[in-house]
Amino acid sequence: MVDIRFYKNNGPFTLAKIVEVTGAKLLDETKSQMQVMGLAYMENATDEDLCFFFDKKSKAKAVDIKAKVCITTNELKDLVPENVIILISDNPKLAFFKLNQAMYAMPEPEAKIAASAHIAKDAKVGRNCCIGENVLIGNNVEIGDNCRIDANAVIDDNCIIGNNCHIGVGVHISYCVMGNNCKIFSGARLGQDGFGFMFEAGQHKRIPQLGRLVIGNDVEIGCNACVDRGALDDTIIGDGCRIDNLVQVAHNDIIGRGCILVSQVGIAGSTKIGDYSVLGGQVGVADHVTIGSQVQIGAQSGVMSNIADGEVVMGCPTVPIKQFMKQSIYLQKAVKK
Amino acid sequence: MVDIRFYKNNGPFTLAKIVEVTGAKLLDETKSQMQVMGLAYMENATDEDLCFFFDKKSKAKAVDIKAKVCITTNELKDLVPENVIILISDNPKLAFFKLNQAMYAMPEPEAKIAASAHIAKDAKVGRNCCIGENVLIGNNVEIGDNCRIDANAVIDDNCIIGNNCHIGVGVHISYCVMGNNCKIFSGARLGQDGFGFMFEAGQHKRIPQLGRLVIGNDVEIGCNACVDRGALDDTIIGDGCRIDNLVQVAHNDIIGRGCILVSQVGIAGSTKIGDYSVLGGQVGVADHVTIGSQVQIGAQSGVMSNIADGEVVMGCPTVPIKQFMKQSIYLQKAVKK
Amino acid sequence: MVDIRFYKNNGPFTLAKIVEVTGAKLLDETKSQMQVMGLAYMENATDEDLCFFFDKKSKAKAVDIKAKVCITTNELKDLVPENVIILISDNPKLAFFKLNQAMYAMPEPEAKIAASAHIAKDAKVGRNCCIGENVLIGNNVEIGDNCRIDANAVIDDNCIIGNNCHIGVGVHISYCVMGNNCKIFSGARLGQDGFGFMFEAGQHKRIPQLGRLVIGNDVEIGCNACVDRGALDDTIIGDGCRIDNLVQVAHNDIIGRGCILVSQVGIAGSTKIGDYSVLGGQVGVADHVTIGSQVQIGAQSGVMSNIADGEVVMGCPTVPIKQFMKQSIYLQKAVKK
Repeated sequence: MVDIRFYKNNGPFTLAKIVEVTGAKLLDETKSQMQVMGLAYMENATDEDLCFFFDKKSKAKAVDIKAKVCITTNELKDLVPENVIILISDNPKLAFFKLNQAMYAMPEPEAKIAASAHIAKDAKVGRNCCIGENVLIGNNVEIGDNCRIDANAVIDDNCIIGNNCHIGVGVHISYCVMGNNCKIFSGARLGQDGFGFMFEAGQHKRIPQLGRLVIGNDVEIGCNACVDRGALDDTIIGDGCRIDNLVQVAHNDIIGRGCILVSQVGIAGSTKIGDYSVLGGQVGVADHVTIGSQVQIGAQSGVMSNIADGEVVMGCPTVPIKQFMKQSIYLQKAVKK
Repeated sequence: MVDIRFYKNNGPFTLAKIVEVTGAKLLDETKSQMQVMGLAYMENATDEDLCFFFDKKSKAKAVDIKAKVCITTNELKDLVPENVIILISDNPKLAFFKLNQAMYAMPEPEAKIAASAHIAKDAKVGRNCCIGENVLIGNNVEIGDNCRIDANAVIDDNCIIGNNCHIGVGVHISYCVMGNNCKIFSGARLGQDGFGFMFEAGQHKRIPQLGRLVIGNDVEIGCNACVDRGALDDTIIGDGCRIDNLVQVAHNDIIGRGCILVSQVGIAGSTKIGDYSVLGGQVGVADHVTIGSQVQIGAQSGVMSNIADGEVVMGCPTVPIKQFMKQSIYLQKAVKK
Repeated sequence: MVDIRFYKNNGPFTLAKIVEVTGAKLLDETKSQMQVMGLAYMENATDEDLCFFFDKKSKAKAVDIKAKVCITTNELKDLVPENVIILISDNPKLAFFKLNQAMYAMPEPEAKIAASAHIAKDAKVGRNCCIGENVLIGNNVEIGDNCRIDANAVIDDNCIIGNNCHIGVGVHISYCVMGNNCKIFSGARLGQDGFGFMFEAGQHKRIPQLGRLVIGNDVEIGCNACVDRGALDDTIIGDGCRIDNLVQVAHNDIIGRGCILVSQVGIAGSTKIGDYSVLGGQVGVADHVTIGSQVQIGAQSGVMSNIADGEVVMGCPTVPIKQFMKQSIYLQKAVKK
């Protein structure tokens, strides 16, 4: 159940409106003017709510649905109690997603620049931007239109940020060129020095880090994540990547389109990842490794060598996931003997 | 030895005072007016200090105690050199803890609101609060009595913070309802968007995150830790939980009372943990898993399936800890053959 | 190729100048007045650039060098195409490093104190310091000469910072004594409370944390890293240590000189590490462990017991690295049978 202290409820919605938003089909059309007050999960929904039911595995719970309305599939509809009004959708999850967006559309903050923000005279800030308290925008920075930059964010000299970007509270961005529609969450550190040293005269001397961080369009980077800039070439994050909280991406990494890096992943320097690959939580990847496209790497795996397109691996070092499971079972049996 | 540059020493304390604070028993009562200047560990204590000795394993070091006074147990007292004054306690560790608090009680900062803080007009701030420089408190926020909110913290619209809470430097809190007596350390990110996507038309679309983060009473959350809010239901952190630095708690997780999550633990979404369970450092837990109460999970373990109450497990995937140790030994022997 | 939007190019450099900076030998001295515009890696360098070639493993690529000038060794020089001008160096990597520094030397920010900085009246700030916007410097803090403290950093009461230190954006420092020439990156949290509790009356009571964090000279600590102060004794980071992003160092750890802790390493409390040891990414170390000097610990390893000087280990629990590899191969073969 959504707490209206935090979220504006644009409802109630009539079933006709819901059909319009979701493309679902109302079985009993006489009810098109009935209203729904809110959205909730199957197990929590009250008789004023709409819920969804799409997963056969939850059918035991379907008997107890107390919602007024349920979006489900044609196949599952007979499992829903008789008094619940049914909407049929090929993809109830997507329908529910669209309805969430419509019913609880978040109000955009007003476009204004806080008096306490420090914006360099030669920085360019696009139209309709919202710049929060104590934000710092350095010399020669360029920020596109419709951007929102939250309190205490720091954007260092010469950075370029595209249109429709949302930079969260306390984010720090340096040596970065960012595309459009990106969302950077609170506390992320982008474009800082890579961890590269040269041992000389008993000391680890930092190698000058002279590259950039280039971020594509529609990228999200999570809270307190760190993405270092390149040493001489660039660190590159492809379009549509989703990077979770507390992830580390090192200098000169090149990550393709639509990759997902789950929380606490760490990727060492100069590693390449193809498109639409998924790295589970806490995965570590060695430096100078090449990972293909549509690769899936199980959580906590340690990648030490290249992985071809489409492989599904796990373990440290990684092996095909079925083999990882077999190894675990083998070991469990071996010590029980 | 405590550095009085950083900590105020309320001493010297007479032994009578120490008896009063700790409940320990002074063997030689004629010495009750003697004084102790400070507290230190056994190996560092000088002849003006008090130390404690509670662990039989350290008995080799006891011979060298140079402290003026030692709190120990009746069982161990004969191991302490003769010239050291002895106080007997059933629990010397607890006695030392109480004495630490009494001798070095930290002065509370003055209750005042910094001129540079931005507090929304309709926010409610309780009595006797200390609000630091550049703090931002959003619309309709409610903050209880005796709270301390340190510099650069940002509390977004509508959040509720209970009494006696301490919010650290640069913390960011959104969509959160927090109980009393909580301490949130520097740089923690609470209530940000969960990492939930739906793949549609070649793009990972973010699922609207419409839940809250509900934090109980007496909870501590460490530096740079991230606790996301729920997607539709809430993320819940139970009373008395202790969450260490750099931990990740994902959306819709429900954590019971008194759990301990050691540094760099990562818990994926919709997972439940019972009461008083302990997760060692760098443990990872998959999504939708149920972990019971009083479970202990060894450091770096990867939890992929449910764990019953009271189990003690380790490894990835987790097995009973004894079996984990056997597996390690088995493998070491196998390759030596 | 270095982007002059972000980095000032002090070039072009004549080959004579390059010889002067690097100590390399120009084979064809008639070319000493020729000029180089920039520096680039072998594979990207254009005919205006200088590149370097030092690794025999890259010899296949050497054929395609398009750079104007290449720094290489006497041994490798014959692999470079004939039209490329050659400079000979015993250590081309070091030569390139020096050249990077000379050609793209970063301009130091102007020494000034931002009007929005809050500096306590009794704090001492040395000569030629640069204090950024909204920086907070507490009571009785001492800061040396030539320091740079970036925006939103918070340095709490009584801390001591040496000369030539660079404190990054949003860093928070408490109970800390820091040497000279240190660099602390954006978002690091230094000197916060250790994670130490005592279970009493159903509650985890925090043990008072009364120690300091003592940091030597020439230490670097990465973005969003956390280094807690000691409980009663100090946490100590030795001279020349390099600590990467998102690392956790717990209370009372003592780390020797020149150690390298790669990203996401986590070290539990009261652990000791000798000099020049290297911990790979995501390594975890248990509490109260002693690790010797010049130890190398492979990425993701879990250290549960002491490690002697010079050992090279991997795995969880750690074993000699060769044995770790054998164990992996053994397991892979065992399940294929």
